[in-house]
Amino acid sequence: MRLTKFTDYGLRTLIYLALAPDRLAMIAEIAEAYEISENHMVKVVHRLGQAGLVETLRGRHGGLRLACPAEQIGLGDVVRALEQDLALAECQGGGGCAIRGACRLESILDEALAALLAVLDRYTLADVATPQSSVLLRKLKIMAKDADVRP
Amino acid sequence: MRLTKFTDYGLRTLIYLALAPDRLAMIAEIAEAYEISENHMVKVVHRLGQAGLVETLRGRHGGLRLACPAEQIGLGDVVRALEQDLALAECQGGGGCAIRGACRLESILDEALAALLAVLDRYTLADVATPQSSVLLRKLKIMAKDADVRP
Repeated sequence: MRLTKFTDYGLRTLIYLALAPDRLAMIAEIAEAYEISENHMVKVVHRLGQAGLVETLRGRHGGLRLACPAEQIGLGDVVRALEQDLALAECQGGGGCAIRGACRLESILDEALAALLAVLDRYTLADVATPQSSVLLRKLKIMAKDADVRP
Repeated sequence: MRLTKFTDYGLRTLIYLALAPDRLAMIAEIAEAYEISENHMVKVVHRLGQAGLVETLRGRHGGLRLACPAEQIGLGDVVRALEQDLALAECQGGGGCAIRGACRLESILDEALAALLAVLDRYTLADVATPQSSVLLRKLKIMAKDADVRP
């Protein structure tokens, strides 16, 4: 019952960006910090951009940053934006099952999924990562870089 | 965020058996009713047996039935028994992430997963399927077969 790798990496990217909101990050450095393929990361960042969660500034001093403060990014909304298909079983995803439509399991799974998302809705990205999260900053080797400071 | 196919098929098997608790079912008929590979179903039934959820009677009039009444089979316990790895992200599953152990996301995901299971724990197999579920019986083409009646 895993979140997709896409959502997992999206959450990690947002955590990275929330740790140093005053600088612009490069996709390559985030990929390196988490030891994730940069190709994967490009797609994840593209989706985060489409979802309005991050913004990319182009140019020589360009890079990536959160589109709004971490306090305003709810974890439930991140999961809703990144999971392509929020369904615990085929029936919830619209897939075929011989008893679909007549079986009560689908509504029970709906209720279970709603309970999961309700927990995530109680937290924001700021509950996971802030510029004061010194252990996370150290583990991800994030340092303030004057050259990258937000204009 | 799907349950594994293994869990999905396990739930469908239990639903099938709960619809006609007084007869013994064959793996082949369950596989056919749901249009699922019989090979898959053999593995699922083996696991259901290991988990104490179904029992198999051998011999010419043998077959499969629930190991206890559907009212005693909690849906949360079924999912716990069938999901090989109850984790929403790699960190929960013991997998590697550069910030594992220092990141609060893991405990938030634990809380979300617990909320999901708590909903499933409120329901039993009998909330989904009983011998009175006539639409399900018809859709799965289950009929009482005298020859298979429980001894």
